[in-house]
Amino acid sequence: MRRVLIIGIGAGNPDYLTIQAIDALNKVDVFFIPDKGAEKAALRDLRTGVCARFIKEKVYRFVEMAVPQRAENFSDYKANVAEWHADIEVNYARLLREELGEDECAGFLVWGDPSIYDSTLRIIENIHAKAEFAFEYDVIPGISAIQALAARHRVPLNRIGESILITTGRKLAGGYLEDADSVVVMLDGEQAFKKLAGDFQIYWGAYLGTDSEVLVSGRLSEVADEIAAIRAEHRQRNGWIMDSYLIRKIEK
Amino acid sequence: MRRVLIIGIGAGNPDYLTIQAIDALNKVDVFFIPDKGAEKAALRDLRTGVCARFIKEKVYRFVEMAVPQRAENFSDYKANVAEWHADIEVNYARLLREELGEDECAGFLVWGDPSIYDSTLRIIENIHAKAEFAFEYDVIPGISAIQALAARHRVPLNRIGESILITTGRKLAGGYLEDADSVVVMLDGEQAFKKLAGDFQIYWGAYLGTDSEVLVSGRLSEVADEIAAIRAEHRQRNGWIMDSYLIRKIEK
Ligand SMILES: C[S@@+](CC[C@H](N)C(=O)[O-])C[C@H]1O[C@@H](n2cnc3c(N)ncnc32)[C@H](O)[C@@H]1O
Ligand SMILES: C[S@@+](CC[C@H](N)C(=O)[O-])C[C@H]1O[C@@H](n2cnc3c(N)ncnc32)[C@H](O)[C@@H]1O
Repeated sequence: MRRVLIIGIGAGNPDYLTIQAIDALNKVDVFFIPDKGAEKAALRDLRTGVCARFIKEKVYRFVEMAVPQRAENFSDYKANVAEWHADIEVNYARLLREELGEDECAGFLVWGDPSIYDSTLRIIENIHAKAEFAFEYDVIPGISAIQALAARHRVPLNRIGESILITTGRKLAGGYLEDADSVVVMLDGEQAFKKLAGDFQIYWGAYLGTDSEVLVSGRLSEVADEIAAIRAEHRQRNGWIMDSYLIRKIEK
Repeated sequence: MRRVLIIGIGAGNPDYLTIQAIDALNKVDVFFIPDKGAEKAALRDLRTGVCARFIKEKVYRFVEMAVPQRAENFSDYKANVAEWHADIEVNYARLLREELGEDECAGFLVWGDPSIYDSTLRIIENIHAKAEFAFEYDVIPGISAIQALAARHRVPLNRIGESILITTGRKLAGGYLEDADSVVVMLDGEQAFKKLAGDFQIYWGAYLGTDSEVLVSGRLSEVADEIAAIRAEHRQRNGWIMDSYLIRKIEK
């Protein structure tokens, strides 16, 4: 039986790998490695580095996957993403069929945790549901950027008895914040925090868990410009950036 | 310099430990192990088991901490929790002072991730802020029950472009759900899901990651009674239960 393992490798620090993920790595025959624009080199190195470091005896191979581009002009965000995922799905299905032998195990190394803002699981699930060829699949959790952010700032994500909202820059810009207490923002290319009205505390982190990690925290009104400037500078220097933040109203 | 490590050990499966957590374990001289009512034996065994399995050369000791009881009669939930934390803080401060030598390292083994619904970090932060004696402290992230839940059900926590609200049974019972898309519920002793009106999909899990793990998923209206019955039965049998669930409206 063909097998697919969707393995969370943590959000930046190879030491975030769990024993379970390491065991899973050691079962994989073929790793499918995405080829992804500007971030490509850095993320690819992390993925292959993790294999080199943690796989002991097993013989394995890499297959590069060209990741289709997302259409740049669209009116409906979700339809745009869904279309993009459909393109990726066609690719994945073909690769699994062509590259994975009868009794082999495929591995997808997912940044952070596979259940948080990542499409791999959804795509594999779709392929599985179509049942054009049989395979089993499993998910191995990983340390997400959210947890790396909290740990590096040494800050609880929730206030006592309160909720945590995990959302995107896009949603935050749409004013999602009203009811929420603590808000974790990912996928924010627009620095939506700059437009928030109110008195907030922010804990911001970029390249969490890596050697390039940057942390800034403070009262939003006092650090917003600094974060925007640091973000722009690092993004320029590295050609890409991954940043997240935790934000909550300051209690009177 | 005294050091304190707040180490996330994952939510049930010892294989959830990260390399970083294992490295941290191997630096600790004294582990402070809470003594906690009914769950005590099982959780204590997991903590000591993790040490036995992953600590290689280091000589370490355990110190049991009696965890004060939370007052049972209260009018203000947060004040009640704050008072309870204050009691724990007095205990922790005394233990750190009395049990930790000048250059020693203390370890707190936190279930799941230390930043998610856990008071250890907040308490250590308070003791640190009072500066009655000097120490450094660090936080090591761990796989939370949320991630275990998603991985075991092989389900993404978010829908495309949507948010994830992490909340408590208490909040859900108060009707917190309106704006949210996907909702993860922890700390729900009351099975607040039973009272929800609307058409939901639920992914429920108890004792996630352990040998006693139970998973149920389906349309809420069809599985709510089954979950309540299974929960009651296991709780009775084991004397304690830890369960969480992901819930979201079924899209028309
Ligand atoms: C497509 S999502 C993937 C999230 C991932 N599955 C996880 O669990 O962390 C990418 C977003 O995660 C956040 N992120 C991932 N890795 C990060 C890191 N090392 N530092 C800061 N943010 C990170 C950023 O907000 C980025 O836009
Ligand atoms: C005090 S909170 C601690 C959460 C922990 N810090 C984490 O990150 O998972 C305890 C709640 O976590 C959830 N939980 C923890 N471990 C669990 C497990 N193994 N299975 C199901 N739920 C769990 C339950 O909702 C429980 O009421």
